[in-house]
Amino acid sequence: MRDIAVIGVGMIKWGELWEKSLRDMIVEAGLLALDDAGIDHVDSIVVGCMSSGLFNGQEHLDSLVADYLGQTPIPAARVESACASGGLALRTGFAQVASGLADVVLVGGVEKMTDVSGSEATYALGTAADQEYECFHGATFPGLYALMACAHMEKYGTTRKQMAMVAVKNHDNGSMNPNAQYPFKICVDAVLESVMVADPLRILDCSPITDGAAALVICPLEMAKRLKKPLVKITASAMATDTIALSGRREITWIESAYQASKKAYEMAGKRPQDMHVIEVHDCFTIAEIMVMEAIGLVEKGQGGPAVEAGLTSLGGKFPVNTSGGLKSKGHPVGATGVAQAIEIVKQLREEAGPRQVKGAKVGMTQNMGGSGGTSVVHIFERG
Amino acid sequence: MRDIAVIGVGMIKWGELWEKSLRDMIVEAGLLALDDAGIDHVDSIVVGCMSSGLFNGQEHLDSLVADYLGQTPIPAARVESACASGGLALRTGFAQVASGLADVVLVGGVEKMTDVSGSEATYALGTAADQEYECFHGATFPGLYALMACAHMEKYGTTRKQMAMVAVKNHDNGSMNPNAQYPFKICVDAVLESVMVADPLRILDCSPITDGAAALVICPLEMAKRLKKPLVKITASAMATDTIALSGRREITWIESAYQASKKAYEMAGKRPQDMHVIEVHDCFTIAEIMVMEAIGLVEKGQGGPAVEAGLTSLGGKFPVNTSGGLKSKGHPVGATGVAQAIEIVKQLREEAGPRQVKGAKVGMTQNMGGSGGTSVVHIFERG
Repeated sequence: MRDIAVIGVGMIKWGELWEKSLRDMIVEAGLLALDDAGIDHVDSIVVGCMSSGLFNGQEHLDSLVADYLGQTPIPAARVESACASGGLALRTGFAQVASGLADVVLVGGVEKMTDVSGSEATYALGTAADQEYECFHGATFPGLYALMACAHMEKYGTTRKQMAMVAVKNHDNGSMNPNAQYPFKICVDAVLESVMVADPLRILDCSPITDGAAALVICPLEMAKRLKKPLVKITASAMATDTIALSGRREITWIESAYQASKKAYEMAGKRPQDMHVIEVHDCFTIAEIMVMEAIGLVEKGQGGPAVEAGLTSLGGKFPVNTSGGLKSKGHPVGATGVAQAIEIVKQLREEAGPRQVKGAKVGMTQNMGGSGGTSVVHIFERG
Repeated sequence: MRDIAVIGVGMIKWGELWEKSLRDMIVEAGLLALDDAGIDHVDSIVVGCMSSGLFNGQEHLDSLVADYLGQTPIPAARVESACASGGLALRTGFAQVASGLADVVLVGGVEKMTDVSGSEATYALGTAADQEYECFHGATFPGLYALMACAHMEKYGTTRKQMAMVAVKNHDNGSMNPNAQYPFKICVDAVLESVMVADPLRILDCSPITDGAAALVICPLEMAKRLKKPLVKITASAMATDTIALSGRREITWIESAYQASKKAYEMAGKRPQDMHVIEVHDCFTIAEIMVMEAIGLVEKGQGGPAVEAGLTSLGGKFPVNTSGGLKSKGHPVGATGVAQAIEIVKQLREEAGPRQVKGAKVGMTQNMGGSGGTSVVHIFERG
């Protein structure tokens, strides 16, 4: 298996982008990544997107993106793993380069979510859950995570305030990210008093509906060494699955897929959780960040809430988590999220993260999650 | 890059399967493939599916399939390239095994198309075309291929009868395939007199709406050699893209993506078109088979029609094409089609194709196509 490096990154400012179409966004992000890499041609494209069929009436994104980026006839692929589609795209590109099927691969992620009504968006997002045994009976995504939150509060004493502090921390970080959808600070009271979505989760516990795209370029490490950029290696790419429905889990307070994927990633990279200098996790809801912190081994089971309260995951804490602002503040254009997580880590390891830079960051990781934890994709990056 | 072999294949009988859900079908096909391989565990799953979001309100198939096949927590992926999703799934699994990220991979394909109305199915299939520049203006898939058919008839003198003979040949073959949706013969007059869909294409020129699933198991060649089955190697895996919209093409009588993908595949395998003993191509419409024959080099440009009329591609001809019955007779559950094409070639090379066996077949290929040719995936298989 060949060693792999990231040589270019690009993302557009996320938000409600009424003036930009699906193809506009991914092309813009792709061109930014190519420009950052200093190249104008790649051998292959992989695009992560969850549900462009339901959101935009457009599948076949591999052809569309290769076409609109002027890269035909190169091979391309669209991959989908619900909210982990971006992470899966990176892993799919990783396999192509590792195998030698391609040298230089553009990995993109995109979702255009604001062209449909709120109820249509809720339906589309629900397709990440078990349609027949969850959604059909009325479950929504906030509803599923609310069940997990209630169970976590009951079992471990996790508090509403601790969950709110996840949102506050991520908005603190996001306020320093010019590409974030909501680049402003919020306070604990604002979260606690915001409108209820699914008890105990309020609107400021939830990641937003977002239009956005992100892209990066990977290639064999030996090729990357010839460039003048700071070298960022991908030293682990791992994925794991779990039951798609919550009802199949042994316990709903634990994200087994994140545990399994991170375990494999740590083995692959020869690292431990405590070796991580900067970490992006999938905070689709505040409770998700707390549960993932536990599953990937940053803290013991049940200790996620107190750890957030103690500042462990704040910028300047032991484990800075979601320095980009996370899904909460940066936004969550589903298919683009996993790619943008990787971009944040690359920027941190290159020391290009500006006011949110983690000083001396040499090792970082991303955890991208599909559905209520049915899939997790974990990557580890190291400064070369 | 490691050499790769197919060690198990499985598909269910295709049709309008009112009594089977999406998950029922892919699990059944998956279990058949595992059983054929003589194993009960794999390292990774890749599922090809075009539009389960629009057809079934269910995305996140990687989690669903790993879950319902009892394979969690292994990694899984869902890939989409419109009607080439199955071929892309095989190529994605190929990259995983070639890179060493996985040893034994289950590659599946599935589509459950009959749970929606005809107009909803037409809309869903249209998402393989350019939504903004084709579908929005009223184009349907039969309409796009009708444009190509008219141009081919005008430029090369291809006749309605030649197109009809593609359907007749494929039904002849499909009548010997117990898993085909329409396992019966038809005659030229039946095609020519069938109801018009998009002039000049009539209903019997079109592949049907189908529920179906198919799966196969691949692993490193060295591992496959230890099994007692006839050895079938995958000696090439190639893909190419073209503009998603017909309007972007230099000529609409030529499928550039099939030409590019087959060219790369021939190079990778060290083979020429004339080395192929059995070939499955993407006959979503009769004209598509004629155009693909030309693009992959079985005949010269414009000679597809006369070649079919002369029996070149019939069972017993020089290049037996679509011995399985093709999409026309076997059915076209979009995401499953590319996987089922590979299964037919494996069965032919193992000499398990029964009455439709091509005697002494040692080398075969598949060509799976997305949209109106926006993508093509080509694989070459050889008896070990």
